[in-house]
Amino acid sequence: MLHAIVLAGGSGTRFWPASRRALPKQLLAIGPDPSRSLIAATLERLAPLCPVERVLIATGEHLLPATRAALPELPPSAFLGEPVARNTAPCIAWATAIAARRDPDAILCVLPSDQHIADVPGFRAALERAVAATADGAIVTIGVKPTRPETGYGYIELGAEEAPGVRAALRFVEKPTRSVAEGYVDSGRFVWNAGMFFFKASALLAAVAEHLPSLYEAIEAIEAAARVGEDEERRVTRERFPSMPDISIDHGVMEKVRGLRVVPSDFGWSDLGSWESAWELSPRDDAGNAAPAGAVLRDAQRNLVRDLRTDGRQRVIALVGVDDLCVVETDDALLVLPRERAQDVKLVVEALKGSARSSLT
Amino acid sequence: MLHAIVLAGGSGTRFWPASRRALPKQLLAIGPDPSRSLIAATLERLAPLCPVERVLIATGEHLLPATRAALPELPPSAFLGEPVARNTAPCIAWATAIAARRDPDAILCVLPSDQHIADVPGFRAALERAVAATADGAIVTIGVKPTRPETGYGYIELGAEEAPGVRAALRFVEKPTRSVAEGYVDSGRFVWNAGMFFFKASALLAAVAEHLPSLYEAIEAIEAAARVGEDEERRVTRERFPSMPDISIDHGVMEKVRGLRVVPSDFGWSDLGSWESAWELSPRDDAGNAAPAGAVLRDAQRNLVRDLRTDGRQRVIALVGVDDLCVVETDDALLVLPRERAQDVKLVVEALKGSARSSLT
Repeated sequence: MLHAIVLAGGSGTRFWPASRRALPKQLLAIGPDPSRSLIAATLERLAPLCPVERVLIATGEHLLPATRAALPELPPSAFLGEPVARNTAPCIAWATAIAARRDPDAILCVLPSDQHIADVPGFRAALERAVAATADGAIVTIGVKPTRPETGYGYIELGAEEAPGVRAALRFVEKPTRSVAEGYVDSGRFVWNAGMFFFKASALLAAVAEHLPSLYEAIEAIEAAARVGEDEERRVTRERFPSMPDISIDHGVMEKVRGLRVVPSDFGWSDLGSWESAWELSPRDDAGNAAPAGAVLRDAQRNLVRDLRTDGRQRVIALVGVDDLCVVETDDALLVLPRERAQDVKLVVEALKGSARSSLT
Repeated sequence: MLHAIVLAGGSGTRFWPASRRALPKQLLAIGPDPSRSLIAATLERLAPLCPVERVLIATGEHLLPATRAALPELPPSAFLGEPVARNTAPCIAWATAIAARRDPDAILCVLPSDQHIADVPGFRAALERAVAATADGAIVTIGVKPTRPETGYGYIELGAEEAPGVRAALRFVEKPTRSVAEGYVDSGRFVWNAGMFFFKASALLAAVAEHLPSLYEAIEAIEAAARVGEDEERRVTRERFPSMPDISIDHGVMEKVRGLRVVPSDFGWSDLGSWESAWELSPRDDAGNAAPAGAVLRDAQRNLVRDLRTDGRQRVIALVGVDDLCVVETDDALLVLPRERAQDVKLVVEALKGSARSSLT
């Protein structure tokens, strides 16, 4: 049966002031639907194929309360809190072992919790195709058809077709230069690595044993402890996590594994990397502004206005004669910056971190 | 003795969202001193020459409570509330008659309540010179040496010197065209009309009798009623005000009166006409930003940031990569617009006036 590992760690600063250390991006409703957090939307997309009873949420221990609060329909056992952050390989191997404990024949899909997908039926079709392609023990990934020569993503080179809509994955390429990325897009032979992986639990654990033996040994120790009891499992997990290799599943396993497959797809994927992507995905008026209904905009074009205050007080946001700005306010912060500099939110976070007001980050 | 009429009517919209119908500009601390309203600063400048006991504040009836609250040191009798707005000629004639009732030999200075003056000793010197020039019954004004070919102000042409620092006023010119204004500035023969007037009560009332006889008749009726008693005075004032001529003291009296004098001056005057002037007058950092101490500014230059919230909650305002903006927030509004478009605040006020949210104007 299909189980899901939803990756919900990380501490996005790129959506400050909405995102905070204790409130990362996946817990925010920054997508086009202002009523649903990204992680809740992720589970909703998944529900027809993998109901919540078979979902594991892998997050940081410190994020457990906020993450549980964002997903009240999940049982407590669905939440895995990493004692320390050790990138994705340890947490995926760990969650896979736990799923295998519950269902030795588990097929797993690993999905990020903080992406946006416009074409949900298209996504589900790709996911079913990827799951089917795991039947013979292969590890499978979904690759997103690139729409621009993005230099911030990893790419996967497509090989021969192995089944309808399923290609061999020839190699992973980390963030290429602009000109290389342009060549990739023009060639039609490359897709973006969207961080979605599909495998039988046994296949992933075998790959971990081969390519990350020290991690496999730690996972085995946790499994042995789990057979003793929950307290022992907790103790050994806490003991072993800090010395697990701090490596991504991409570098640690996917780039090395033989017979990796990729399902090239095109379902309106966005990694929602900044306020700029939030603007791109949001409904906009004729002047290109994405703003709350009550905002007053005059001679203002292509602005993103987000009012994320929670105090419920009436307030008007007025923009006159400004174009291409992000204006975001929360209860304790106001941010104004050009959309094209959306990545530079980090400058503010850095400035606050080094100040008496680090609580605002 | 010197008495003062401080003009505190009007309903500035140019400082929205700080200014509102019920909270006009003079009641705001938008000058360089964030602890003092403009009207309080006006009285403070005046105090050594004209203590508060001899000050009359002419305002609209609806503004009386807020104006009294801004000037708690003044006695209730200092506040004159116009039943309806009828421009400056009626209210100056009315206030002059009331001052004359208290002191038949009163010399009056009429001063706007919403200006900023950088060089206070210079201002006081000009004022004393102007007061001295009223001795023979002349009406006197202070003219401000123009620093730019401003097309939004009235100008006064200077004539012969009648006493040291006192010139004849040849004529008033309303808001000239740009090229005419440039000629005025270059000639050195023109000064800005700053709306400050000085006269013996008897001289102003005689000029009103000559040039605005219907107004004079109404004022006489109020004076007759005042001799009957306060209730009668209130009744007749309320009865007569609506039919008084709706005309400025400039048009109604000053442009027509013979022997008008002007004291040309240069004391760092500003009419604080917009957020742009507030920026000009404010202390600024090396990058030209006038912002609260806690604001985070990165690659941001020459911005005006005003946090006028009163809820006392900690809040950070962050600007990255934006130049020459006004960012102003109050408890119920946020405004973002370029400094050079500061006058266009009125577009927001107009939009709100025509909406369900006219309470925000």
